[in-house]
Amino acid sequence: MASVTLNKARTIIRKTLAKAREMELKPLSVVVLDAGGHVIAFEKEDGASPGRFPIAHGKAYGAVMLGLPGSAQMARAESQAYFMAAVNGVFGGQVIPVPGGVLLKDKRGAVIGAVGATGDTSDNDAAAAMAGIELAGYTGEA
Amino acid sequence: MASVTLNKARTIIRKTLAKAREMELKPLSVVVLDAGGHVIAFEKEDGASPGRFPIAHGKAYGAVMLGLPGSAQMARAESQAYFMAAVNGVFGGQVIPVPGGVLLKDKRGAVIGAVGATGDTSDNDAAAAMAGIELAGYTGEA
Amino acid sequence: MASVTLNKARTIIRKTLAKAREMELKPLSVVVLDAGGHVIAFEKEDGASPGRFPIAHGKAYGAVMLGLPGSAQMARAESQAYFMAAVNGVFGGQVIPVPGGVLLKDKRGAVIGAVGATGDTSDNDAAAAMAGIELAGYTGEA
Amino acid sequence: MASVTLNKARTIIRKTLAKAREMELKPLSVVVLDAGGHVIAFEKEDGASPGRFPIAHGKAYGAVMLGLPGSAQMARAESQAYFMAAVNGVFGGQVIPVPGGVLLKDKRGAVIGAVGATGDTSDNDAAAAMAGIELAGYTGEA
Repeated sequence: MASVTLNKARTIIRKTLAKAREMELKPLSVVVLDAGGHVIAFEKEDGASPGRFPIAHGKAYGAVMLGLPGSAQMARAESQAYFMAAVNGVFGGQVIPVPGGVLLKDKRGAVIGAVGATGDTSDNDAAAAMAGIELAGYTGEA
Repeated sequence: MASVTLNKARTIIRKTLAKAREMELKPLSVVVLDAGGHVIAFEKEDGASPGRFPIAHGKAYGAVMLGLPGSAQMARAESQAYFMAAVNGVFGGQVIPVPGGVLLKDKRGAVIGAVGATGDTSDNDAAAAMAGIELAGYTGEA
Repeated sequence: MASVTLNKARTIIRKTLAKAREMELKPLSVVVLDAGGHVIAFEKEDGASPGRFPIAHGKAYGAVMLGLPGSAQMARAESQAYFMAAVNGVFGGQVIPVPGGVLLKDKRGAVIGAVGATGDTSDNDAAAAMAGIELAGYTGEA
Repeated sequence: MASVTLNKARTIIRKTLAKAREMELKPLSVVVLDAGGHVIAFEKEDGASPGRFPIAHGKAYGAVMLGLPGSAQMARAESQAYFMAAVNGVFGGQVIPVPGGVLLKDKRGAVIGAVGATGDTSDNDAAAAMAGIELAGYTGEA
């Protein structure tokens, strides 16, 4: 399994933020986690509200821990809210189950981490993260 | 970015409470937080129930952390209850997503803190806080 | 049992801060709790570090909950650290067992609340709070 | 009070990591927090152990919340272990009281944030962070 280097994480974040500027989104915050759900790198754009690290982290953390991107977590929350609430119980309340949590995969399709983006609508957050992941040479599942 | 001094926080609280008396509301409690979500000042009127600090704080804290006033948080909770529940997970259960959490802005529109009011209906809480903020020379977003 | 009104709490805080300025202390933060350990009022002077509410609160909260001022809690912590750690377990980690937590008593000696002060040395914090309490017409036990 | 932009935070991190390579330290992890204790940016060098974000964060968070650098927190922990344990209670267990938590100050001496570094000895972590802060044009207090 390939692992995400700091250099690659920087590239993902820079490309995600560049895409956000191109899309004229609100100030974005982006985190990259490794395959164990641990933080490699994070950046918050000027003007974002203070609490953006925990939200970006929660989107990416849930994706890695469950092996499910934000859209799939949201679908489960819509149909079984108590299930995602229980998931949050076992993960210490650290999961944010909405789009913007994107699985990061290598060329063989193995999950090697996740990206969490927050600041605009959940769908725009996810679109920017997907662009950043692809521009960095990885495959994303949003 | 301007910061809220203790003198300004006192003025906001006094004017909010004066407005509450003019509106003949139930006893009100009012907190002022800075741009990082930290408490500058708080007052609870005689006759208010004991647990008013955490509620006032939760309204203002959520507003600062998310950059969203109480009304916007409530709308999100109405449409996606599991999202606001998850947000509360990452913020340690410290967010009360209803009106009465009002963003405090300087003349350029930058968020420099938040006011949290509680004791009457959520809408009345918000109206008193808005009046206090404006009488202190700031702009509020409720 | 007399109870502490908001007006009285304001007086205690103002007198404590005035004493702190007279003593040329670092910026102080002062909380007043009622006999049930609930917040009536709080103020943080400009220039104090952000985390002062939880510390001021922890000093006063421990005093009310245990019926012991900060100095007595500190003596217990010095002789039985595991006891104060266990106390913090049952009170959710909300107790700061050092001087600056001062019991507030009425003329008959009944505990009607507590004052918590923080920002300078623990002993100076306690001295300023004692002065504020006495200037407001109450008796303190530091 | 100046605030730390993302560009400045990036510079601090890059310069701290460059200094760490020059000093031949183990892989370092570095976080930059703003004046409210919120994360602006974080990077973890390849080869660092997974749990480095919470440690870097804990060093910087304690510095901002208390207005005390890691060395002063450590001195307090050495003389009054129960006090720093209690402080951790009120801050949710988020404080790591050792060197490597460095206050970030502007030209007037106002605290505008903190840097947390971890990975080598606490003293080497602090030395690298101090170099990064100074190369970025700020003043540090370690």
